[in-house]
Amino acid sequence: MSLLKEQYNQYVSHLQKIQDINSTLALLHWDNEVHASAKGAQLRGQQIATLSATVHEWAINEELGDLLKTLYDNRHELSENEAKNVELSLVLYNTERKLPTEFVMAFSKAKTNAFHAWIKARKAKDYALFKPELQVIVDLLKQKAEFIGYQDHPYNALINEFEKGATVAQLDVLFGDVRKQLVAFAKEIREKGTPSKKNFLHRHYDKKKQWDFGLELLKQMGYDFEAGRQDISEHPFTTAFSANDVRITTSIKEDNPIEMIGGCLHEGGHALYEMGLQLKYYGLPLGMPTSIGIHESQSRLWENQVGMSWFYWQANFSRMQDFFPTALGDITLKQFYKAINQIEPNYLRTIADEIHYHLHILIRYEIEKGLLDGSYDVETLEEVWNQKYKEFLDLDVPHATYGILQDVHWAEGLFGYFPTYSLGSFYAAQFYAKAKKDMPELEQEIAKGNMQSLLDWLRHHIHQHGQKYTSEELCHRITGEGLNLKYFMDYARQKYAEIYDLKAEFFNQV
Amino acid sequence: MSLLKEQYNQYVSHLQKIQDINSTLALLHWDNEVHASAKGAQLRGQQIATLSATVHEWAINEELGDLLKTLYDNRHELSENEAKNVELSLVLYNTERKLPTEFVMAFSKAKTNAFHAWIKARKAKDYALFKPELQVIVDLLKQKAEFIGYQDHPYNALINEFEKGATVAQLDVLFGDVRKQLVAFAKEIREKGTPSKKNFLHRHYDKKKQWDFGLELLKQMGYDFEAGRQDISEHPFTTAFSANDVRITTSIKEDNPIEMIGGCLHEGGHALYEMGLQLKYYGLPLGMPTSIGIHESQSRLWENQVGMSWFYWQANFSRMQDFFPTALGDITLKQFYKAINQIEPNYLRTIADEIHYHLHILIRYEIEKGLLDGSYDVETLEEVWNQKYKEFLDLDVPHATYGILQDVHWAEGLFGYFPTYSLGSFYAAQFYAKAKKDMPELEQEIAKGNMQSLLDWLRHHIHQHGQKYTSEELCHRITGEGLNLKYFMDYARQKYAEIYDLKAEFFNQV
Repeated sequence: MSLLKEQYNQYVSHLQKIQDINSTLALLHWDNEVHASAKGAQLRGQQIATLSATVHEWAINEELGDLLKTLYDNRHELSENEAKNVELSLVLYNTERKLPTEFVMAFSKAKTNAFHAWIKARKAKDYALFKPELQVIVDLLKQKAEFIGYQDHPYNALINEFEKGATVAQLDVLFGDVRKQLVAFAKEIREKGTPSKKNFLHRHYDKKKQWDFGLELLKQMGYDFEAGRQDISEHPFTTAFSANDVRITTSIKEDNPIEMIGGCLHEGGHALYEMGLQLKYYGLPLGMPTSIGIHESQSRLWENQVGMSWFYWQANFSRMQDFFPTALGDITLKQFYKAINQIEPNYLRTIADEIHYHLHILIRYEIEKGLLDGSYDVETLEEVWNQKYKEFLDLDVPHATYGILQDVHWAEGLFGYFPTYSLGSFYAAQFYAKAKKDMPELEQEIAKGNMQSLLDWLRHHIHQHGQKYTSEELCHRITGEGLNLKYFMDYARQKYAEIYDLKAEFFNQV
Repeated sequence: MSLLKEQYNQYVSHLQKIQDINSTLALLHWDNEVHASAKGAQLRGQQIATLSATVHEWAINEELGDLLKTLYDNRHELSENEAKNVELSLVLYNTERKLPTEFVMAFSKAKTNAFHAWIKARKAKDYALFKPELQVIVDLLKQKAEFIGYQDHPYNALINEFEKGATVAQLDVLFGDVRKQLVAFAKEIREKGTPSKKNFLHRHYDKKKQWDFGLELLKQMGYDFEAGRQDISEHPFTTAFSANDVRITTSIKEDNPIEMIGGCLHEGGHALYEMGLQLKYYGLPLGMPTSIGIHESQSRLWENQVGMSWFYWQANFSRMQDFFPTALGDITLKQFYKAINQIEPNYLRTIADEIHYHLHILIRYEIEKGLLDGSYDVETLEEVWNQKYKEFLDLDVPHATYGILQDVHWAEGLFGYFPTYSLGSFYAAQFYAKAKKDMPELEQEIAKGNMQSLLDWLRHHIHQHGQKYTSEELCHRITGEGLNLKYFMDYARQKYAEIYDLKAEFFNQV
């Protein structure tokens, strides 16, 4: 074996060890959510801290740095994929090294404090209790941006962690369009459209039967139960220990089966991405999801483009009636389809429909950006929040817990994460439009319950590549252009005009 | 803070980190047994290997060694318990350091190979397929004994890992008595006793109801479901992530509720020991079980002395009838009590009754000792095994899978572990006799379903001490003498004479 090949293998082995610990951390977190024993929480926290510190040490290890530099300098002697792995690892290594250990520790401590303050503040419905800790977080994030470095806007440094290459300049244009087009679109529908009844969706739907129906839907979409499992948790999530062990959770409410179905398809979509990564790149960049936005595109595509479509319910509605004859026996497919697609502003992001959702994200995007560049401050943030909810959603926020305290992200130090939710939805619409073009029979197949062609298409175009391409590169390779909101708007216009009995002209109005 | 105090804190922090990783390893193993996804096994194995290597590195870390030596040299300035922690940690450290890293790696690899060969050999019912790998294990164990060092017999070095202070000299006397007394005892009962019917124990017992009944029994004995949980696995086991998160598993067969009950009480007993350790000593010797034998004494005491007793079923039989009216409606408490206590030789250790069990252990003890000192060899071991089963249990072993291949221990490199099963049972009898003497009302309380006094007694005399006392020290402190088989024999004679309608003279005959 050549010396370089040996060094490449050393690098692989080092990264796989980091992944082993990260996968183990994922198991600790998963277990916390799924099995949490009340009294075990404190020491579990300490166990997580110890493993996190170990991962950090290994990630900034100087020998790794030397290895990466040598490999990078000689990358022309490596294969294309090997060189790509090295290049991406070196970028990550250099970023990690920019953060002083004292900063990493201070930030970690601040997050713990902020999380506990957030819990307290939510209970008391009082933003003031969270304010001092949020201030610490924001100050540290500003520092973090300086450590990492950025062009144009400090927020860029933070977004980049979740969505490589995304910038404020780009997102300003995109969210400018969201603001212009979606606010108007939602308003037009509310004012001119004919709403449908949906109260039957809140009849009684037995828990065990929902669980069984959800498992059927997961199998139908191609989720592999030999490489994962589903459990119950308070908030649904997906976690991967390797491409061969990807677990999802769901939560079930007996008066709302759509939440369970949406959850299964959403987490199932995330899981299919992780299951579709190449096992031979375990622990290496080419074996990891390329961005949070692309991850979200996979969950949203299954949840919305597929799961909220007429074709999908052609395949599955009568089966659902078999499960719930009392609740759905007197309901037609058309009534059901319209009911699940009703849109309505709500002050809570997590239960927002697929249109209003992006107005929630828009608000958070503007606030995060403003906090970073000083246009907004923590002190008066609640007023800003409430004003924006009035302006974009025409809603009066009832209290802080349903307002500025509704999301955990800021308490966990996550700034720059929210925009990826919208990016994911828009990528999903664009990818799905291309998939339909590539496969004219696609929706007819879905209507028969056959999801294999779609999964194959996603595997081929997206999953297998890991981080080989950034979101934008991937989008270009697949659709021939960068992210374009047009596809989402086309999808929304066509779908909702039909659902709300709006005339054809509606397509041009908004 | 004094320098020494600071150093003591550094030591504590280092040991807690080791414990954090060990607890995490325990979670990985637990998850393997309880949730194992078929395809995830391979990378899970790699994750376990990475964490194990990390623990080993931390355990033999030179800075830790220096710290321990300094603390030990100045132990008179520490509190008694601090000094004890340091002393025990230093012994462990010195032992670990004696094993060269190459040996640790070779042994780890040999165990993996042996395990896979064992699986294959069991399938084929062919000891020959396991032989070469067992030979490697035995050779390595001989090396290990040399590395660690020993007096008198190499087996002593191995036993010591599980039962500090136990020696071949001691065990030869003990197992000599077992051989003499128990073989005769079992034979007498078979020949002179009146057996009772037990076929009703194999009627249909619904799985879900067994599960619910098991949970009731666990709560009754004081298992804390806020600090643990029960799940289903193929083989029942207990695992602790801290004293505040101790989990057990059970397995349920619809034609044998006694297996489930025995499992719950056995694992529950292990769990109560772990839950009773002092949280403030998390990761330190005083916060860990003192030996496998004492651990086993706790499981056996609950499973046998309590769970197979007349008093226990006075408390619980009618409740069990409520759960299983069809299977037990026509059965009296006395019939039930006699049925669950029937003894019968069987070639499988895991389902042996509480008398014959020790003949299985005796056989393994003699074989392990003989392999270490060269009296037996791997080549002809199956004949030795089968001869001993004929001699001690009067059984013809049907084939290797039900014979020499029945236990996983040797494939996992565990030599010296088996004797602790018998030690545990004999300690259990001795402790229980003392508990009854200390609390004359004990069995009357148990008959009312009140287990609290017993648990308090165990907590006070055993659990809280961790490794502060060795098994033998603990036994002396509690009972005023060392381990004495007499207590087990008294227990057995009294119990089985009654169950098998044997006259009072029986007490003196065997």
